Amino acid sequence: MNNYEYHVPTDIRFGRDQISCLDKEIGKFGNKVLMVYGGGSIKLSGLYDKVYKILNDFEIYELPGIEPNPKLSSVKMGAAICKQYGIEAVLAVGGGSSIDAAKHIACAAFYDGDPWDLVLDRSLVTRALPIFTVLTISATGSEMNPGAVISNEKTKEKLEINHPLLYPTLSVCDPSYQFTLPARQTAAGTVDILSHIMEQYFQPNDHAYITDRLSEVAMKTCIKYGPIAIAEPDNYEARSNLMWTGSLALNHLFTFGKGGAWSVHPIEHELSAFYDITHGVGLAILTPAWMKHVLSDETAGRFAMYARNVWDVSQEDDMTAAKAGILRTQRFFRELGMPDKLSEVGIDDSRLSEMAAEAIRTSGLSTRAYVKLNASDVENIYRECL
Amino acid sequence: MNNYEYHVPTDIRFGRDQISCLDKEIGKFGNKVLMVYGGGSIKLSGLYDKVYKILNDFEIYELPGIEPNPKLSSVKMGAAICKQYGIEAVLAVGGGSSIDAAKHIACAAFYDGDPWDLVLDRSLVTRALPIFTVLTISATGSEMNPGAVISNEKTKEKLEINHPLLYPTLSVCDPSYQFTLPARQTAAGTVDILSHIMEQYFQPNDHAYITDRLSEVAMKTCIKYGPIAIAEPDNYEARSNLMWTGSLALNHLFTFGKGGAWSVHPIEHELSAFYDITHGVGLAILTPAWMKHVLSDETAGRFAMYARNVWDVSQEDDMTAAKAGILRTQRFFRELGMPDKLSEVGIDDSRLSEMAAEAIRTSGLSTRAYVKLNASDVENIYRECL
Repeated sequence: MNNYEYHVPTDIRFGRDQISCLDKEIGKFGNKVLMVYGGGSIKLSGLYDKVYKILNDFEIYELPGIEPNPKLSSVKMGAAICKQYGIEAVLAVGGGSSIDAAKHIACAAFYDGDPWDLVLDRSLVTRALPIFTVLTISATGSEMNPGAVISNEKTKEKLEINHPLLYPTLSVCDPSYQFTLPARQTAAGTVDILSHIMEQYFQPNDHAYITDRLSEVAMKTCIKYGPIAIAEPDNYEARSNLMWTGSLALNHLFTFGKGGAWSVHPIEHELSAFYDITHGVGLAILTPAWMKHVLSDETAGRFAMYARNVWDVSQEDDMTAAKAGILRTQRFFRELGMPDKLSEVGIDDSRLSEMAAEAIRTSGLSTRAYVKLNASDVENIYRECL
Repeated sequence: MNNYEYHVPTDIRFGRDQISCLDKEIGKFGNKVLMVYGGGSIKLSGLYDKVYKILNDFEIYELPGIEPNPKLSSVKMGAAICKQYGIEAVLAVGGGSSIDAAKHIACAAFYDGDPWDLVLDRSLVTRALPIFTVLTISATGSEMNPGAVISNEKTKEKLEINHPLLYPTLSVCDPSYQFTLPARQTAAGTVDILSHIMEQYFQPNDHAYITDRLSEVAMKTCIKYGPIAIAEPDNYEARSNLMWTGSLALNHLFTFGKGGAWSVHPIEHELSAFYDITHGVGLAILTPAWMKHVLSDETAGRFAMYARNVWDVSQEDDMTAAKAGILRTQRFFRELGMPDKLSEVGIDDSRLSEMAAEAIRTSGLSTRAYVKLNASDVENIYRECL
C-alpha cells in the first residue's frame, strides 16, 4: 500500500430526526448563520420550516437559488453577506451544489480578492467559517470531504477547490429527506456515487487489497439499492444504504493506500461546464465509453477483477470477463433510466476538441491517470458517445 | 439502518517513515512529552532512538514497563508525572496496551481523585492531554478509537474507559515497524482484529447491508494476510493490509447503523483479568465455543451469511453452512498457531463460575448482546473450552 494521510474530522449525524442537534452544535460557534440552498424543494418538503423552527434563537441570513452546478457569482454573493453581517457559521441545506457553494463561501468570507483566486491557488485559503450541512441528495459526498466544485461562468471553467479547512464540521444525513427525490435525481446520484468509487478503484496498485475489496462491496451496494430507491422512493433501507455509501465513496476510504488522478470526472466536468448538464447524467454516458477506450491487455486484469467481484461475472478469460463487466455497467445505467448518448442531452460535435483540450489542461488525465490520455483520446471518447 | 453518530477525528499517518511528522505535530501542543511504552522491544528495534532523534528539542519524560494488560498502578504513575512536570502531550510507542494506558493517563492528568473513578463514571472525564501514538502491533485498534481497557489489579476488574476526548490526536501507523513482531503476537493480533469485526457483525440487524459487506471483506483480509505475515514477517503488503484493517476494525465503521453489546470480549476479559493471559489467545479459544453455543434456528441465517461471504462455504442449507463456517473459523485459529483449550494456557475449572458472574455483571451480555446470555451460559462456554 502507498503511504497515506487519513484525517476526516466531520461529525456525521446519521438517521431520522438527527437535525434536532443543529441548534446545540451550531450554537457552539455563534448565532449568526448563513443558510445556503437551491430551489424551492426544501420549502415544499417542509425542511425549510423545520430548520427555522430548530434555529429559532438564531439570526438567519439566506442565500437561495444555488445552481445545480454552483456558480462563482453565487459564491461572491454569499461571501459578501458573511462579511457584511459578521456571519459565524454557514449552513447548507441541499445536495452537493449547495454544500460546495457553502464551502467556497466559508473561506471566501475571509479573503479580500476574487474568490476564484482561492480555487486557482489553495495556499490563499487560510481560514474558513465552520460549515454545517443538511444533506438532501446522496451523490457528491461533499458532506464528508474537503472538496467543492465551482463553475466560473465567465471563463467556462469548472474546477475544484480542496482544503482541509473545508471539511464540514457536522453533517446531518437523514435518509428520510430523500423520500421525495424524483427518480431521475436518485438515478443520477447513484451514478455519481458509483463513479466516485470507480475513479479510485481503477488505479494501478494491486497491493491495497482491503481498499479494493471495500470499494467493490460499496459498488455492489449502489447496484443493489439504486433501483430499489427509484422504484420505492420511501424505502428507508435503500435510502440509508445509498446515503452512507455516498458519504464513504468520497471520504478517502476507497483511495487509502492507492492514489493517482481521476479519469471520467474531468472529462465530464467539461460537459457540465460547456452545456450545464446534470453531472451524474454525463458520467453515465461517458463511463462505459471510457472503459472501452482504456481496456487493453494491460488493464484487462483489473477490469476482470471488477467484473467478477462487482458484477459476479464468471468468465475465466480476463479480457472476456472485462468486456462482460463493461457491458453490465452500461446496461445498469440504462436500467436506471439514464441516457447513453450525448445527443440525448443536446450535445453535438461542435465543441468536442475545445472540451477535450480543457479536460487535459485542467486535470491529471495526461500525467497521472490510470491510463494516461491525451486530447485526441478524450475527443474520441466524446465522439463515441455522440 | 439504525441512527448513528460517526465522528473519528484521529489523524492517521500511514506508511513508511511517517514518524518524521511527530516533532511538528506534537510541537503544536507544547514540548513536554510523556513517552509511554512497554518492554524493551522498541529499544531493540531502534524505534526508541528514532523517537528521541525526532523529538530532539523536546523535554521527554518516560513511563516504561506498561504491562500487556495495562494496570491501574501504571496509570497512576503516569498521571503523577503529568501533574508534577506539566506534561503537554502523551506519546504512546507500542501496541494497544501502551496506547490504552496513555489514554487513561491523558485524562487522569486532570483528575484529582483515584483514576479508577474515571473508568466507573465517564462523566468525570472533562479534559485530556492530546494523545499521540506510534503503533507497533496491529490488534486493538486503539490508535483510532476513544476506548481504553484497564486492569485494576486490586479488584481484579478489567474494564473499558471510553470518551470522545480520548481519540488520539494523531497516530503513526508504519507497517514496517511490525517486521520484527514474533509470529505468536502477529497471530494473536490477527485474532483480535477478526474478533472486533465479528462482535459488530453478529448483531440482529439485517438492514445495514453496506456495513455487513464492508465487515465481511475486512474479515477476508485478516484471513488472507494473517498467515502471510506469520510466514513472511517482513511482507509489507501483508503488514499494511492487516494494519489498516486493524484500525478500521474498531473505529465504528463496522458497527455503523447497527449496535448492541459485544459477546466474546467480555467473556474473555475475565480470563485476562483473572489469569493475565494474552487477550487474542483467549479470544481464539472462546470464539468457536461461543458460536456453537448461540447457533440456533434463529441465528443460523446470519451465521450462514458469514460462512458464505467470509469463508466461501457453498452449502445451501443455512444450518449446515453455518456449522461449516464455525468449523472453518476454529481451524483458522489453529492454523495461526493459537491454542484451542483453556488447559493449554493454564486455566482449570476452579474459578469459572466466579468469572462468569463477573462477565455478566460488567457487560451487556444479559441485556443487549446478539444472543442474550446468563451466567450459566457463560460458565458453559468456559467449560466447553477446558
